[in-house]
Amino acid sequence: MDRLRSSAIRDLLTLTARPDIVSLAGGLPDPAFIPRDRIRQEMDRVLTDPGSVQYAETTGILALRKVLADREGARLGRLLDPAEVVVTHGSQQALSLLAQALLDPGDTVVVEDPAYTGALQVFRAAEAEVVAVPLDEDGMDVSVLESMLTQGLRPAVVHTVANFHNPRGVVLAADRRARLAQLADSYGFWVIEDDPYGELWFEAPTPDPVAALSDRVVRLSSASKILAPALRVGWLHGPREVCQAVELLKQGADLCGSSLTQQVAAGLLADGPWLAEHLTELRGRYGARAKVLVAAVENEFAGIASVSPAVGGMFCWMEFYGHTASPVDTSVLLQTAIEHGVAFVPGAAFGVGADLSSQLRLCFATSSEDVLVDAVRRLRGAYDGSAAESVVQS
Amino acid sequence: MDRLRSSAIRDLLTLTARPDIVSLAGGLPDPAFIPRDRIRQEMDRVLTDPGSVQYAETTGILALRKVLADREGARLGRLLDPAEVVVTHGSQQALSLLAQALLDPGDTVVVEDPAYTGALQVFRAAEAEVVAVPLDEDGMDVSVLESMLTQGLRPAVVHTVANFHNPRGVVLAADRRARLAQLADSYGFWVIEDDPYGELWFEAPTPDPVAALSDRVVRLSSASKILAPALRVGWLHGPREVCQAVELLKQGADLCGSSLTQQVAAGLLADGPWLAEHLTELRGRYGARAKVLVAAVENEFAGIASVSPAVGGMFCWMEFYGHTASPVDTSVLLQTAIEHGVAFVPGAAFGVGADLSSQLRLCFATSSEDVLVDAVRRLRGAYDGSAAESVVQS
Repeated sequence: MDRLRSSAIRDLLTLTARPDIVSLAGGLPDPAFIPRDRIRQEMDRVLTDPGSVQYAETTGILALRKVLADREGARLGRLLDPAEVVVTHGSQQALSLLAQALLDPGDTVVVEDPAYTGALQVFRAAEAEVVAVPLDEDGMDVSVLESMLTQGLRPAVVHTVANFHNPRGVVLAADRRARLAQLADSYGFWVIEDDPYGELWFEAPTPDPVAALSDRVVRLSSASKILAPALRVGWLHGPREVCQAVELLKQGADLCGSSLTQQVAAGLLADGPWLAEHLTELRGRYGARAKVLVAAVENEFAGIASVSPAVGGMFCWMEFYGHTASPVDTSVLLQTAIEHGVAFVPGAAFGVGADLSSQLRLCFATSSEDVLVDAVRRLRGAYDGSAAESVVQS
Repeated sequence: MDRLRSSAIRDLLTLTARPDIVSLAGGLPDPAFIPRDRIRQEMDRVLTDPGSVQYAETTGILALRKVLADREGARLGRLLDPAEVVVTHGSQQALSLLAQALLDPGDTVVVEDPAYTGALQVFRAAEAEVVAVPLDEDGMDVSVLESMLTQGLRPAVVHTVANFHNPRGVVLAADRRARLAQLADSYGFWVIEDDPYGELWFEAPTPDPVAALSDRVVRLSSASKILAPALRVGWLHGPREVCQAVELLKQGADLCGSSLTQQVAAGLLADGPWLAEHLTELRGRYGARAKVLVAAVENEFAGIASVSPAVGGMFCWMEFYGHTASPVDTSVLLQTAIEHGVAFVPGAAFGVGADLSSQLRLCFATSSEDVLVDAVRRLRGAYDGSAAESVVQS
């Protein structure tokens, strides 16, 4: 089933590479917002050092682990040692190595429903038993997790995208973070706090990370969304024994990361004033796009579908109301949408147990405002065509 | 046991980072031979393209797969399709993903004895049963493999470093390649032809790859030894179904490689005249170092130890004669050697079943001729000190 889902999304993404299709399906930063000139300057500087082209330490070059320890430590409100940080090849590798380090086949993993598909893929490959906890506007419904625990569920890992959830866009509320941290301590499970989007807040910074509230948390993040995906720099921080286990696994998986792109990332992340300005700019630009997309959906689909407020990250979530004569199945709608020159990801691609057939994910990050508005018009056209078709068929 | 070995080597490598120690232990290219200026030029050019900083295709950017298909196809003597190539994060990742794609727990894997430790680590992590076939001056003793097969051994995979073996330095003879290919066809196992060093020949090009002789071969190579480790560009080519399985696994492992370093690698590998000149220069420089190291060992250890002729790659192999009163244990010698300011890797680190306690690996690639000569003198000093000590103790 997961294979099917994965291949369906992949086939879709292949289609959406066609130049006549506006894709709101991906989760790509806009290359125009990537600080390419700054990366080139930094690359030129880094490449004056002969060590820049050599193998790197398996856990990442020290300069990068230091700046990450500083930045993450500031979020945690405590000093973080560089030995508590491992640099990975994107945060997807952190997730994959953690699944190997923390899970045995048959172990239970709790995910959010809907869930990040990359996490589902990793946990299923680890032969874990995946259990879903529903999400609402305040993120994972921790009270549902708590009743499951009371009833005997003993997960090895709980995975959460606490900030600007992919695909739902929501933020885990502060009180739920506190409760989740307490439950991790009481029941002894690991929390994987997967946070690639946390810096991309539009209105207010996100609450303290779960990792600030418990030692049973491994926090993941990435330079892909704030600097550039092509650096392939992600990281995790957590207890030393977890870092050491991940280091051994990374040695077998790929020996080490690129000292070149790691030095570039270290240079950019350590340049505080530049980074602050860059992040402010990114938040403004992505935030403006989010607003435009949400307004366009509200305008075109008034009375037909709702759309979540987009307060950060890259995605918003649309849900067709169920009161129409023939409910919309977004997997079916996608076919018509592609004929109308627009693509999205159907809700079913992210579902674990929940029925998400009337929902879909839109990415506002990659396209300009004009294109977003045009895409939503096309989507409305597809909806009308699809509705007409279902009338004819019935 | 493998964990112990791995950690022993790691502890050793930590020690050898001390500036007062000449390390012949690593397997690092000399940064002075890495075309850093050319990489910087290429990086500047690549970074004019906004796509250079975006996510890449999971199997690698097409421009790189094309040039790899051309180059590998030329070695095979047939056209290779870019869809038969997957770019990986160094060839270690190719090995790791192949182990996941081709092996189930309990499957048998044949390795050479001594073996590349990175392969042992991967196969043991895959819970394979590792069976060793001895090496001699002509590479893997394929007749031993053949008798094992006749007696009922049914491996899923046979792993070989056919060119300039790590750690032994030897080349698999052409007739043995042909026989290995026939056996793969007859018995239906996969050959992993792991070839990071093949371009680094000093006297004559290597025989045709095993992959030219059978469809049951997945060939691995890397830009790390000829361009730069920091590009983290390795690759495999093989049957499409294997490539597709590896693609799915890579998607879960780390989504994709770096489009930035892949474009740089593609640019350098596609520049035929520059590359040919660069490789000629590399062969000359590493070849000169190999000669100096071998001569120094023959000179300092005449009558005490033999050293393999170094015809390519990065390593030569030294073996103490067994006729002395107290046979040398190179794991013990290493301690004294470090006190004398020189490091190597003891043979035991690479052994699967064979007793390699009187043998050791030396890397001639990283250090200049003067330093190599000095290192061998220090090693002789360590040997004398060690011998004196064992006389005192006995």
